[in-house]
Amino acid sequence: MLTNRRLVRVQWGDCDPAGIVFYPRYFEWFDASTILLFEKATGMTKIEMLERYGGAGLALLEARAVFKVASHYGEDLEIETAVTEFRRSSFYVHHKVTKDAGATLALEGFETRLWTVRDPENGDRLKSGPMPPEVLSGFTRG
Amino acid sequence: MLTNRRLVRVQWGDCDPAGIVFYPRYFEWFDASTILLFEKATGMTKIEMLERYGGAGLALLEARAVFKVASHYGEDLEIETAVTEFRRSSFYVHHKVTKDAGATLALEGFETRLWTVRDPENGDRLKSGPMPPEVLSGFTRG
Amino acid sequence: MLTNRRLVRVQWGDCDPAGIVFYPRYFEWFDASTILLFEKATGMTKIEMLERYGGAGLALLEARAVFKVASHYGEDLEIETAVTEFRRSSFYVHHKVTKDAGATLALEGFETRLWTVRDPENGDRLKSGPMPPEVLSGFTRG
Amino acid sequence: MLTNRRLVRVQWGDCDPAGIVFYPRYFEWFDASTILLFEKATGMTKIEMLERYGGAGLALLEARAVFKVASHYGEDLEIETAVTEFRRSSFYVHHKVTKDAGATLALEGFETRLWTVRDPENGDRLKSGPMPPEVLSGFTRG
Repeated sequence: MLTNRRLVRVQWGDCDPAGIVFYPRYFEWFDASTILLFEKATGMTKIEMLERYGGAGLALLEARAVFKVASHYGEDLEIETAVTEFRRSSFYVHHKVTKDAGATLALEGFETRLWTVRDPENGDRLKSGPMPPEVLSGFTRG
Repeated sequence: MLTNRRLVRVQWGDCDPAGIVFYPRYFEWFDASTILLFEKATGMTKIEMLERYGGAGLALLEARAVFKVASHYGEDLEIETAVTEFRRSSFYVHHKVTKDAGATLALEGFETRLWTVRDPENGDRLKSGPMPPEVLSGFTRG
Repeated sequence: MLTNRRLVRVQWGDCDPAGIVFYPRYFEWFDASTILLFEKATGMTKIEMLERYGGAGLALLEARAVFKVASHYGEDLEIETAVTEFRRSSFYVHHKVTKDAGATLALEGFETRLWTVRDPENGDRLKSGPMPPEVLSGFTRG
Repeated sequence: MLTNRRLVRVQWGDCDPAGIVFYPRYFEWFDASTILLFEKATGMTKIEMLERYGGAGLALLEARAVFKVASHYGEDLEIETAVTEFRRSSFYVHHKVTKDAGATLALEGFETRLWTVRDPENGDRLKSGPMPPEVLSGFTRG
């Protein structure tokens, strides 16, 4: 399955008065990592992909993180992101965040998302739509 | 059980190019809401409370959000926060976010946290400690 | 001149490992304060105002802050915001941030902004436009 | 003079409902860029540098940005950071942000900062101190 790996250096401003990463930052990194994974799968930016395949968004149904070890300013985190399952419209994203060059598991993240399209009867409303096969194929190729 | 309610007006800068709240913002509001609940329970700021009762922090073990309806710039959200269960050290926080004056459930948040103290044998390490009874009593009073 | 005053409680997550507000947070509060001032002047949200008067945005030309005293988690800041001058398209916003119930000046902020409209010959491009008199009048009324 | 260059990919969550970077994000990148420049000069993290040379922080006196061209999700920005002048305690940082592989100037940033130390007569208070020569030398070396 296609995987995206990226390094994130923890910046001073990512950390709270206890000197550790303020936890909503991890979800910012998860959101960006999911998008980067789809960019890698399709060779397009999120906006280009949505326009090309008639999507309205990658709606989030659920987000979760399980924290193991806190991280501090100056540490380098590796975020490894993959889709663990595609259903018709929904899909499950897993983020594994390690540090110490992979030796320490810092936290894991989980997102449940939905490929959405505009409701043809009411353009202001979104509804779930089948994941386009062209997008899917980018995840299984090679 | 003690409950904290607060209104959050969604600001322009909380929203993403789709015009809806960028989801990590909700976790920022959850974190602040949990702290405000403890402030309400103890009549102290988080720092004062930790100093007074020998705590090192309210470590996060797990955070989760289940999204129902997206929110947009200019909307007023009410965040209702309560601890649903205290164990010896860990406790479970629930956040219910509504809009349209309570008529619409926007999302729910869940945090599992731990009262931590410094390890007396190694001040750099934290370990779980029993929730101080003085803190607990603030949640059941009146 | 119309003035907007709002209280901002400094949250744990607004602060950095030195325990003081991470300075970009002040600019987030400035941006929201400028929008709230226009909401107060027009009785509309920013999006409603732009739609009603054919605007594309309140483009930022320059932002500046002069820091006097650092602020910490738990402090209550009052942000007082006013437009100090309107020119044809551009205008100057001043933010005065005080704490200790107004006794201490924490910092001042300055924004130079521009009322922009879509270029009729190229809808993707923005250009400056005259500040609509209906918007202006909201700043001088009563 | 020592210069730090870094690439920042604009993420979805950095952008506002107008689809452009929410401006406080630039100041987050400026803060991190200044710290990275000092890391490059000293070969230490900010915390190590402050501990080694008895500093308390790089206090911000003024921050300013002059915006030229808005940036959008998916664009790659290069941030070039240098200290333009060192005085006894204060110093001036310049950030030049370009895109389109350097062809377009997006914005410029300016920070005035101060090397601070703890007041020996009152450890809770900070005061300006002379920039340590060992730190300075890292900026002029080769």
